[in-house]
Amino acid sequence: MARRIVVVGGSAAGPKAASKIRRLDQEAEITIIQKSAYLSMASCGYPYFVGGVFDDRNQLIATPTGAPRDHSFFSNVKDIKALVNTEVTAIDREKKEVVAKKLKTGEESRVPYDKLVISTGARPFVPNLPGKDLEGISTLQSMEDADYLKKIAAEKKIKNAVVVGGGLIGIETCEALQLAGINMTVVEMLDQVLPFLDWEMAKLVQNHLEEKGVKVMTQSRVTEFVGQGGKLTGVKTASGEVIEADLAVVSIGVRPNSALAVDAGLETGKSGGILVNRFMQTNDPDIYAAGDCTEVMNLMTMRGQHWPMGDAANLQGRVVAQNVVFGNSKEYEGFVGTGICKIFEFEAGATGLSEQAARREGYTNIMTAIHAAPDKPGFMGAKPVIIKMIVDKTTGKFLGMQAVGTGDVSKRVALGAMALHGRMHICDLVTLDLPYAPPFSPATENFIAASHVIENKWRRFMDGISAMEVKKKLDQGERPFLLDVRGEDEYQQMRLGRGETLIPLGKLRTSLDKLPKDKNTEIISYCKISLRGYEAACFLKSRGYTNVKVLEGGLIAWPFGLEK
Amino acid sequence: MARRIVVVGGSAAGPKAASKIRRLDQEAEITIIQKSAYLSMASCGYPYFVGGVFDDRNQLIATPTGAPRDHSFFSNVKDIKALVNTEVTAIDREKKEVVAKKLKTGEESRVPYDKLVISTGARPFVPNLPGKDLEGISTLQSMEDADYLKKIAAEKKIKNAVVVGGGLIGIETCEALQLAGINMTVVEMLDQVLPFLDWEMAKLVQNHLEEKGVKVMTQSRVTEFVGQGGKLTGVKTASGEVIEADLAVVSIGVRPNSALAVDAGLETGKSGGILVNRFMQTNDPDIYAAGDCTEVMNLMTMRGQHWPMGDAANLQGRVVAQNVVFGNSKEYEGFVGTGICKIFEFEAGATGLSEQAARREGYTNIMTAIHAAPDKPGFMGAKPVIIKMIVDKTTGKFLGMQAVGTGDVSKRVALGAMALHGRMHICDLVTLDLPYAPPFSPATENFIAASHVIENKWRRFMDGISAMEVKKKLDQGERPFLLDVRGEDEYQQMRLGRGETLIPLGKLRTSLDKLPKDKNTEIISYCKISLRGYEAACFLKSRGYTNVKVLEGGLIAWPFGLEK
Repeated sequence: MARRIVVVGGSAAGPKAASKIRRLDQEAEITIIQKSAYLSMASCGYPYFVGGVFDDRNQLIATPTGAPRDHSFFSNVKDIKALVNTEVTAIDREKKEVVAKKLKTGEESRVPYDKLVISTGARPFVPNLPGKDLEGISTLQSMEDADYLKKIAAEKKIKNAVVVGGGLIGIETCEALQLAGINMTVVEMLDQVLPFLDWEMAKLVQNHLEEKGVKVMTQSRVTEFVGQGGKLTGVKTASGEVIEADLAVVSIGVRPNSALAVDAGLETGKSGGILVNRFMQTNDPDIYAAGDCTEVMNLMTMRGQHWPMGDAANLQGRVVAQNVVFGNSKEYEGFVGTGICKIFEFEAGATGLSEQAARREGYTNIMTAIHAAPDKPGFMGAKPVIIKMIVDKTTGKFLGMQAVGTGDVSKRVALGAMALHGRMHICDLVTLDLPYAPPFSPATENFIAASHVIENKWRRFMDGISAMEVKKKLDQGERPFLLDVRGEDEYQQMRLGRGETLIPLGKLRTSLDKLPKDKNTEIISYCKISLRGYEAACFLKSRGYTNVKVLEGGLIAWPFGLEK
Repeated sequence: MARRIVVVGGSAAGPKAASKIRRLDQEAEITIIQKSAYLSMASCGYPYFVGGVFDDRNQLIATPTGAPRDHSFFSNVKDIKALVNTEVTAIDREKKEVVAKKLKTGEESRVPYDKLVISTGARPFVPNLPGKDLEGISTLQSMEDADYLKKIAAEKKIKNAVVVGGGLIGIETCEALQLAGINMTVVEMLDQVLPFLDWEMAKLVQNHLEEKGVKVMTQSRVTEFVGQGGKLTGVKTASGEVIEADLAVVSIGVRPNSALAVDAGLETGKSGGILVNRFMQTNDPDIYAAGDCTEVMNLMTMRGQHWPMGDAANLQGRVVAQNVVFGNSKEYEGFVGTGICKIFEFEAGATGLSEQAARREGYTNIMTAIHAAPDKPGFMGAKPVIIKMIVDKTTGKFLGMQAVGTGDVSKRVALGAMALHGRMHICDLVTLDLPYAPPFSPATENFIAASHVIENKWRRFMDGISAMEVKKKLDQGERPFLLDVRGEDEYQQMRLGRGETLIPLGKLRTSLDKLPKDKNTEIISYCKISLRGYEAACFLKSRGYTNVKVLEGGLIAWPFGLEK
């Protein structure tokens, strides 16, 4: 008898599992039950639809050739029965049936299964604040949300909007609405946007947002939505300030939709996500789970974590399909923690542990390095990429990396992710054989060059100091000797403006009289990206200066604002 | 006493080693001796200079801030003595001196060393053919070559030119001159261009070259350069044909400049490159070598090989520096074999073993798969990337991959290179956590999706057939049932035109009467990229068709020309 497969949830992991099950088993009776009216939505594309990168809504819910992925598509093309606007309200594990309720009529039916796949996704968390039901408050999680915001963007009636939450979705939404001509404010509780980045990397993103006209309020908590006549007029923060806004998009994270599983007695983890083994199987061997409703293994922390990412959902759906059809034969080991987003001309991504996260995980001897460089030779139209590497200093284990800039960040983050998956040591990274030609990268690829910096620090070839440490010193009234070793012309175009001394590297050997007489004075050496700064530091140390440090990443990576 | 370091050769590996030695040892006396008039040239940029991507010649020989990397730069900025137009004619290993001859005066001097670094590079191989000294025959290896070709490109007098050799440099040069308005012909002895690719992938590149107006003659051997009044007028091939040409650029490979080392009794390998141990040290412990003059380890074949690549030269120079200064403390393990080039709108790259190379290396049970897909979601302005994966079928060991297309090839080849460096198995690749957002990749990254195809074949979920095998069948008069499962509109726009039958996937379940009655008939199923083709094959097998194969990569990867 054909096996009966029921898939609860039809957004990403569900349709992927169902389609793959069909490819592996042509006889199975496969049913997708989806609460929403839509199936297999390209939900990661919502911000680009709202922002006008494309206007054809169909592209979010159709195949590349334009066929809408509706129930008749699933039926005709894939021989999969898809019920939309239908909610599964209960799982009867004993009878191996689910209770499906048509949302329009309330009609209930029982659908039997041999194997069940739960892929109920996640829902945006909306805090229970005064005014939360005013018109003009939205999330960006569903097709309906996307339609609503697209309409607002098109109408051009709204002048000011607030995004609550400066995470990945919040920032993507902010970009979209700003591009639609709306004055945007981002309100974020933490002291930075994009928490997958460390503070100083996030600050570079924030600087770019501000250059683009976005107002970014960090360490600000929304306490109330203010309105008039049922419509939003402003967003109030803990400081008492009311930010004028006709629209607020709340994106302070999502929660796994696991109530159905919990009610059926399936185990969930601390995150609220459904617990699965390596085969994406729940504690009921006939029930698998995949996607945003699950808790999966973070391979860096070796802890379960909610990881609501579209790419992971698809990969998990594929794994589940193999295990449903052939028995447990395919493992999903977990994720290393990779993310990326585009912010106007900027790209920002990360993989593995941030410095903050590494500390939280108990690493006490962390070494980091910042490397800034063009993403290809200057003559090929290079754009900068700033990379931060995070390493366990004791062992040289590579823990993670981040990259931001207008250059090709995605390739570099992908390289970092592969290094983590391959459990490579920093010493393995310094001689990688990667595809080099001038249109694609510098002769020494940025990721390799960043690993050179970290190796230089690890082997004590170089003493680096981060922009944050320098800033702290200056704020505390310390007066290190700031040594800019660029050319005079460069200094006229861009400079720190913190009382630094300019001595071009080529003149340094003959200008030692301009340096502090006390050779124990702290000297902080830098240039645009701090390669020349490094050479200067090497030279000064050899001349008996005992306390010379290189400002990592140079002026390009200085997040605190330059004099010019 | 300060240690005396002499570096012979000042192009890539040499200056890198010298500069790094300086950073690690401020006291050393460092001398670079360079035969050419130039130092530290960005030689990989020559084609882009000739092709007009940039016109400022200074960018090839200056730092990013515009300082020419001449002897006074090395002296003032790096405290490195650089002798140009000076050839080292001998190494006296007993006295630890080199004999340096000023090329302009013939004056000879002896320069003592404690440690010697040989980085004499490589020279283009020019076959000893009749007419080889005619005016109008060049290579593209030196600044002088670049200047010569740039002048020709600027003058716009020359109408027709031939590139002899369809390798990486030949193709880059061909693009440059074609962009300068010259009618180009590429003459290649092998049956394909870009030998780091397998034939069918190279054919896709060749198709693109031909679309751009380049004439490509494979399996053609140049036998003579024909001229008049001392000037080139044509290039004669073995078939007797004379290709009209006022310019011929010869790029049939380079040979290591190892004569100096050989004369000094240093060991060289089969390739003619200087033999080095893992520390890039020759058989004389006081002599290191780096860059295009060496033979290094191919980590895929575990054999020494000449690997004249700019990125490797820089990495090796850095390794040598560490070992010169601190004693042997840093290994260069070797290369996996990664290369890439841009060809008009196309990118083509490879890493590891090609299928051909794997066979040469003794692999007898090779499995390959072709995957074609857009490089991001359609709504983000996607461009296609075609990936070929090569795997040892017995073990599932990942051996190599290639990628071509107008999409972002470089990221995918970089991922493949990392997988090889990390010794990852194909089963490790199918659930990678890579940076996903719609501006950067599809929800399932192309490299991961390609690994899905190879896993599908490995686990026998899918029976694929390559375009080459299908073509061979058709050429031999076999008549497999060709099944195109795209839509009618797609079929009108693009099609194979080899007697195929069109049955859109959505209608297949109800159109079995259009299929051969004999269920053992060979059926070859495909669509644009063969995802629908795969689904169709799964379905047909379940209906009792015993011999159904999927045309890998679909029409996008079909290299033999489509009806339209």
